[in-house]
Amino acid sequence: LKNRDKEQFRELFLDLHRTNQMDIFIQLNQQLRSQLYSMVSGNEFADVFEGLDLAKQKQVIQELDERYIAAIFNTISTDEIADFLAELDPSEANKILNTIDNKRAIVIRELLSYPIETAGGIMAKEFVAVKATDKVSEVIDNLRFSAPNAETIYYLYVLDTEACLVGVLSLRDLIIAPAFETIEHIMSTDVISVTTEMDQEDVAKIMQKYDFLAMPVVTKKNVLTGIITIDDVMDIMEDEMSEDFDEFIGAKGGTDLNISSFEAAKKRAPWIVLLAFTGLLTGGIIDFFEAALEEVVLLAVFIPLIMDSAGNAGTQSLAVIVRAMATGSSEKKSIWQTIKREFGTGLILGVIVAIVLLILVPIVYGSFILALIVAASLFITLSFSTIFGGLVPIVINKLKLDPAIASGPFITTVNDVLGLFVYFTIASTFISYL
Amino acid sequence: LKNRDKEQFRELFLDLHRTNQMDIFIQLNQQLRSQLYSMVSGNEFADVFEGLDLAKQKQVIQELDERYIAAIFNTISTDEIADFLAELDPSEANKILNTIDNKRAIVIRELLSYPIETAGGIMAKEFVAVKATDKVSEVIDNLRFSAPNAETIYYLYVLDTEACLVGVLSLRDLIIAPAFETIEHIMSTDVISVTTEMDQEDVAKIMQKYDFLAMPVVTKKNVLTGIITIDDVMDIMEDEMSEDFDEFIGAKGGTDLNISSFEAAKKRAPWIVLLAFTGLLTGGIIDFFEAALEEVVLLAVFIPLIMDSAGNAGTQSLAVIVRAMATGSSEKKSIWQTIKREFGTGLILGVIVAIVLLILVPIVYGSFILALIVAASLFITLSFSTIFGGLVPIVINKLKLDPAIASGPFITTVNDVLGLFVYFTIASTFISYL
Repeated sequence: LKNRDKEQFRELFLDLHRTNQMDIFIQLNQQLRSQLYSMVSGNEFADVFEGLDLAKQKQVIQELDERYIAAIFNTISTDEIADFLAELDPSEANKILNTIDNKRAIVIRELLSYPIETAGGIMAKEFVAVKATDKVSEVIDNLRFSAPNAETIYYLYVLDTEACLVGVLSLRDLIIAPAFETIEHIMSTDVISVTTEMDQEDVAKIMQKYDFLAMPVVTKKNVLTGIITIDDVMDIMEDEMSEDFDEFIGAKGGTDLNISSFEAAKKRAPWIVLLAFTGLLTGGIIDFFEAALEEVVLLAVFIPLIMDSAGNAGTQSLAVIVRAMATGSSEKKSIWQTIKREFGTGLILGVIVAIVLLILVPIVYGSFILALIVAASLFITLSFSTIFGGLVPIVINKLKLDPAIASGPFITTVNDVLGLFVYFTIASTFISYL
Repeated sequence: LKNRDKEQFRELFLDLHRTNQMDIFIQLNQQLRSQLYSMVSGNEFADVFEGLDLAKQKQVIQELDERYIAAIFNTISTDEIADFLAELDPSEANKILNTIDNKRAIVIRELLSYPIETAGGIMAKEFVAVKATDKVSEVIDNLRFSAPNAETIYYLYVLDTEACLVGVLSLRDLIIAPAFETIEHIMSTDVISVTTEMDQEDVAKIMQKYDFLAMPVVTKKNVLTGIITIDDVMDIMEDEMSEDFDEFIGAKGGTDLNISSFEAAKKRAPWIVLLAFTGLLTGGIIDFFEAALEEVVLLAVFIPLIMDSAGNAGTQSLAVIVRAMATGSSEKKSIWQTIKREFGTGLILGVIVAIVLLILVPIVYGSFILALIVAASLFITLSFSTIFGGLVPIVINKLKLDPAIASGPFITTVNDVLGLFVYFTIASTFISYL
C-alpha cells in the first residue's frame, strides 16, 4: 500500500463485493486499518462495517473520530444500527445516537423498544409503500428515488389512507404490467404478514413456507410498520437450529465459541450435575440387584452394552419424533403412526442384535445361558426404548415445555433404567442356571 | 362448491397465495379434486402442482388427462420438472417429456444430466442475460417480456460475445441508474459464481456468506449456464442440517418419516450393531477389573454415573468443536484455543460434580472413602472427556472423513472406556480402605 498506489487501491477495493472487502479488512493490523480509513470515506466504509461481527465493530468504533462514525451511522440501515446499539452500554449507545440524524435516531429508538428475537426486534423500517390508486409508471419513476435507501425494493406494499396494509405486489409484477395500469388491479390482496411481537423462529418458518424474499410486519391494527428480509431470516434459521441442537444435548448457551471456560462451565454445570444425579439413580437399580451381582459378578460386564444400546436406540427415535413434531406433519395421527413405525424398527433391531450376541457371547465368555439372558434383555430393551424415545418428547410437549430441551440425555437415562431393570430381572430369575 | 358458485370460487381461489391454494388442495378428496381441475386451467393449476410434495404430485398425475398434464408442464419452471422427473421411472419420465415443448424438453434433459446435490442439479436455466453495451432503458423495456418466464429478474447477468459471465447488476442498480447509461458503467465486475459440479451445501454457504438472492452457475470455461435461487438454498440448508444431525447420532437416512420400519431398521442396524460391539468392548474393562468388583460389588453401582457423565461432557465438547470446524472460524489456532477452553471447562465441571458427590455419596452409601474414590474418578474423567470430545473430530477430519458421522456415539464409547478405566484403577488401588 504505497502512497502513490493509493488511488488505484481505492478503486480496486471499492469494486469488490462487500463480503470480500470485509474478508480483506479483518486481515489488517491497526496501522493498515487506519490507512484504509483515510483512503475510503465513512459512507464507503459503512458497507464493510455492517458486515463485521460485534467485537470487531466495537474495536473499529474506538479507532475512529466522531465525524467518521457519524458518516458510517448515517449510511447503514437503521435495523443494523439498532442491533449494534442494543449490545452497548446505554450511555455509549446514547453518545452514538446523538451523532445520528434526528429522523433516523427516532426510528432507531423505536426499533430498540421491541424485544429482541421478535419480529419487531429484527425488522427494518425502510420499506417501499404505494397507494392502490397509483399508476404503474409513476411508481417506477418514484422508485428511482426511494430505492437507494430501501431495505428491499423487490416487494411494494400497498397502504390505505390509514397506513393499513391492503395489498402487495412484487417488483416483477410491476415491471410486467402496462405503464398506464393502476396498482389496485395488479396487486394481490391475499397479504401474508406478521405482527411485531411474533417470535423470530415463527417468522422464519412462515417466510420459508411462502418462499418470500421479504415479509411485512404490522401492528395489531394492521398498520405496516416494518419489513423483515430473507438474509436476516437465514441467519436466524441457523442460530435457532444450533440452539435446538444445544438444548438436545443439554448445553444451552454453553457451546458458544466466544465465552470463557468459566462461563461455559457455569452454563453447562446445572445439566451435568442433574445428569450425575440421574446417573446415581440409575445406579440404584444395580444396588437393588446387588445380591444377583454378588453371585455372578460377570453380569456387570454387560452393563455398558445394555446402557449404550438402550441410549442410542432411544436417541434415534427421539430425534425422529422431535422432527415430526417440529415440521408441519405433527398431526396426532401421524405421530402415533411414527411411534408404531419406531416400535417396529425397535423389534427388528432387537432381533438383529440378539442374534449377533447369541453368536458372540458364548465365544468370548463361554456361556450360552449368559448369552440367552443378555440377548433376551437387549431384544426387549431395544423394542421398548424406541417407544420411550417417542413418548418422552410427547409428554414434555403436553407439559408445555420445549421437547428439544436436553431430551437427549434425559431419554438416555430413562432407557438406561429400563434396560438395566429388564436385564437384572431376567438375570436374577435365571441365575440358578448360570 | 355448488355449481353456480363455481365462478366465484374460481375467482377467490386464484387470488390466494399459491401456498394457501396448496393448503386447501391437499385437504380435498378425489371428487373435490376433479371438480377443482375442471374449474381452473392447467396453467393456473401449475403453481399449486409445483408446491406439492412428490407423492402428491404422482397421485395428481394419475388423475389428469394428457392435455392437462402438458399444460402444467409447459408452465412450471424447468428445474422443478427436472427434480420431479428424476424421481420417476425412466419410461414414465420419457412419456411426460414427450408432452413438453421441444425447446423446454432439451433444457430439462440437460438438467437431468447433472448429479443431484450439485449446483448443476439444483440450478434453473431461466436467467436474464444482458450485454455490457446495452442501455439501461432498453434493458428495462426488454424485462417486460423476459420477466414472466425468468426464475428471478432481481439479478441481471452480463455476458460477453462468448456467453462468458463478465458482470452482474441487481434490478435495484438498474432502477436507480439514469436511463441513458450503459450497463458496463453500472455493473459490478467482482462476480461471485459457482461451477456446475460444486456440492449444494457449499453453494448454500457461499450464498449465505454474500447474502445473495440468486447465484450464477458457470461451466469451467466461465460460460453462464444457470442460476440458483435463495428459496432452493433455504430448503437445502435445512436438509443438510438434519442430515448432519442424523449422522451425529448415527442414524443417517434412518430418521426419514416416510420409510417403513423395515427400511429404517436396515439403515440404523449397522450402527446399532457396531455400537453393541463397542459396548461389549467397554464391558471388557469391567471384566479386566473383575477381582476388585468381586471384592466390593457396590463399585458397580457407580458405573452408570461414570458412563453418563463422561458421555455427556464429551458430547458437549464434541458439538463445540464440530461447530468450530464447520463455521469459518476453523483456523488451527482457534481450534486449539477452543480445546484449551474445553479442558478448562472440564476442570471446573469436574470440581463442581466432585463436591456434590463428596456430600451425597456418604449420605446414601455411608462411606466417605467410596465417595472420595468416585469423586476423584469423576473429576479426572470430566476434565479429560472434554479433551477427547475435542480431539476425536479433529482426528476424524485428518482422516478425511466427515467429523459429524456418528461421532456422538463414538465419543461416548471412548469416554466410557476412559471413565471406567480411571474409576476401577483408583478403586482397586484403594480397595483395602473400603
